[in-house]
Amino acid sequence: MKKILAELLTIGDEILYGQIVDTNSQWMSVELDKIGIKVVRKTTVGDLESEILTAFAEAEKRADVILITGGLGPTSDDLTKPCLAKYFNCDLKMHDEALAEVTEFFKSRGRELTELNRQQAVLPTACIKITNALGTAPGMWFDKGDKVFMSMPGVPHEMKKMMTDLVLPRLAKKYQLPVIHHKVIRTIGIGESFLAEKIAAWENALPAHIKLAYLPSLGEVKLRLTGFGTSLPQLESETTQLIEQLIEYVGPFIYGYGDDPIEVVLGRTLRERKLTLSIAESCTGGYLSHLITSVPGSSEYFLGTMIPYAYEIKMRQLGVKPETLEKYGAVSEPTIIEMANIVRAKFSTDIGVATSGIAGPGGATPDKPVGTVWIAYSDKHQTVTKKLQLTKDRLLNIKLASAAVLNLIRQSLPK
Amino acid sequence: MKKILAELLTIGDEILYGQIVDTNSQWMSVELDKIGIKVVRKTTVGDLESEILTAFAEAEKRADVILITGGLGPTSDDLTKPCLAKYFNCDLKMHDEALAEVTEFFKSRGRELTELNRQQAVLPTACIKITNALGTAPGMWFDKGDKVFMSMPGVPHEMKKMMTDLVLPRLAKKYQLPVIHHKVIRTIGIGESFLAEKIAAWENALPAHIKLAYLPSLGEVKLRLTGFGTSLPQLESETTQLIEQLIEYVGPFIYGYGDDPIEVVLGRTLRERKLTLSIAESCTGGYLSHLITSVPGSSEYFLGTMIPYAYEIKMRQLGVKPETLEKYGAVSEPTIIEMANIVRAKFSTDIGVATSGIAGPGGATPDKPVGTVWIAYSDKHQTVTKKLQLTKDRLLNIKLASAAVLNLIRQSLPK
Repeated sequence: MKKILAELLTIGDEILYGQIVDTNSQWMSVELDKIGIKVVRKTTVGDLESEILTAFAEAEKRADVILITGGLGPTSDDLTKPCLAKYFNCDLKMHDEALAEVTEFFKSRGRELTELNRQQAVLPTACIKITNALGTAPGMWFDKGDKVFMSMPGVPHEMKKMMTDLVLPRLAKKYQLPVIHHKVIRTIGIGESFLAEKIAAWENALPAHIKLAYLPSLGEVKLRLTGFGTSLPQLESETTQLIEQLIEYVGPFIYGYGDDPIEVVLGRTLRERKLTLSIAESCTGGYLSHLITSVPGSSEYFLGTMIPYAYEIKMRQLGVKPETLEKYGAVSEPTIIEMANIVRAKFSTDIGVATSGIAGPGGATPDKPVGTVWIAYSDKHQTVTKKLQLTKDRLLNIKLASAAVLNLIRQSLPK
Repeated sequence: MKKILAELLTIGDEILYGQIVDTNSQWMSVELDKIGIKVVRKTTVGDLESEILTAFAEAEKRADVILITGGLGPTSDDLTKPCLAKYFNCDLKMHDEALAEVTEFFKSRGRELTELNRQQAVLPTACIKITNALGTAPGMWFDKGDKVFMSMPGVPHEMKKMMTDLVLPRLAKKYQLPVIHHKVIRTIGIGESFLAEKIAAWENALPAHIKLAYLPSLGEVKLRLTGFGTSLPQLESETTQLIEQLIEYVGPFIYGYGDDPIEVVLGRTLRERKLTLSIAESCTGGYLSHLITSVPGSSEYFLGTMIPYAYEIKMRQLGVKPETLEKYGAVSEPTIIEMANIVRAKFSTDIGVATSGIAGPGGATPDKPVGTVWIAYSDKHQTVTKKLQLTKDRLLNIKLASAAVLNLIRQSLPK
């Protein structure tokens, strides 16, 4: 089967001059890959008619699908629409349905429709209008024999909604793309190369129509299984079986499936099991609490934090014993155990966790280099500690240590 | 004077398929703009010889300077080097100085030089080798009449170092670019459009050879003045005068100049003035403390934080009076005043600050919609409060409220 090729064309001086980073094209690449369309080039040009028309012609030679973003604003430096009309040799005309949509958009927000906004409903007659559910500039789909030009707004959330709901399904239909099924498996606490080693036998035995991708990010690695076929139920059942096998290899590292990061998955568990959490964080300086409280509704299970950054505060406010600090130092197992136990008792929560370490660049000693971090988990049954040896980078250490605590909670929760 | 035009060419399947976001090209655009070179196109192609050679030829037609990143790794799917040799019709040969550099690089890290690493010193004979101070793949500069092809590694910190130290100065010399002087003025606590309104008269009176750019980011707006001329001292003195005038318009909003964000500038002030800080943060959930502690050396002035997320913890642990909470609620001026005063007293610091609000999406009441946030500053002379009405977005509210507290501290410090 012939592979469908795509070119992503971004239009706008603001991208060219570096005023904003283009994150759209990365997202589009991933989504197109998921339905089996291969991106062969990405191009960015400025707001200049000759540049835009040349880019259209070049892209048409190289690709089947040309996905255009940007240049659809209502001001005169936005040229995508007139350029498309010129390229497809057609007029620009008021599109009644588009006008109704833009009118409704403004009405629903209690705002006046200006003449400039009205102009957004003027479209090239050769295009099929694609509704913009979250903005005022409609998308434009042009069929040209086997090829497609699709113009979308550059505003990320508008583009993503349009692409997901309307453009990707339309592309799948036009090119009779195979049925595709994705499943993301989220792992934490194991590096990419160790994970690859552990699952090598399973990976090598994957059937040819099911592909595996490793998607590493801070402290975790996601695995994405993508199956290509003709029957969705069959792909789903095959994937379920493969995941059952995968669990035999690396089950303890898997914390979830799909889009939810560890702090969301963990929050759901705490809420469902009616467990409460408090934190004493030193070297992570608030970042661990921030991860927890970035989740809407976290106040149902997270009660509070003490950040005893200074030695004095560790003693006077949190209540770590002066003897412990003097004998073992702030970055030590005895201290971290006290921190986790004390915060749990003081805040009357089911679980207490703690961090203490040398985030860097200063503060290192010969036996405690930058990147040395102790973390602890405490509940009424047990106290669990872990020593981490992280990096030389302060911010990275803060983030990796915070992720490690979330994983420690996950592993240590009462059965 | 003829404007020098540049094309940025990124090579690599990992960018094309969306496995990583290309942040290099945005940085390069900004740096080129600073020395007066205009980016006219950005192109990304995959690891495929025909695609790469075509992209070289197309770019040469459009631009004077072709800046290439990526495809320089030691593995066989990295094709930039052989493609450059082919395009410039020359051999690939071991480059003695490059070999010495890569050998030294491995030696200094106590690592073995493998045959694969040795191959990184093999370069096209037509190029001038450009040293990679932070990695093993050298840069390659090719003069072609008035035009330049410059190939650099895709690893961001290697590319940035090479570009800053070696490539930009070389470009400025080759094209006899004008002397350029930049000055960044950092403002906080005023939106872009209000700022523009306040400084309109000043902006309109700028001389033609000095340009102004607005660079807005979360909670702050940077102004960049760029002067073009022939004498650096003269540009510097002109800029200094312009800034003196600017201060008359918006002095109270200016917190610094150059690269340092507010948490760094504020940290420097606290350290110099030997002032200590503690925090009681509720709705910001740790993010404010994270900003403060992201700065190396912050333990010199930041002593600790209490995050009394739950109502109970606000009373029992922090010590807000039950009557205050009952009568006015957690999100109120009386409560925020107590929070800031209490944390300052408990932690024995010079300054105490506090946040309490409805980050959303839940928790709103008719008179306290999502985005209502109270912040307070307390020292021995005064307690200052401020009510913010922010957005509907939880994460944005957390970040904007944290920035607002940093600004409140800056404004309220004892004279």
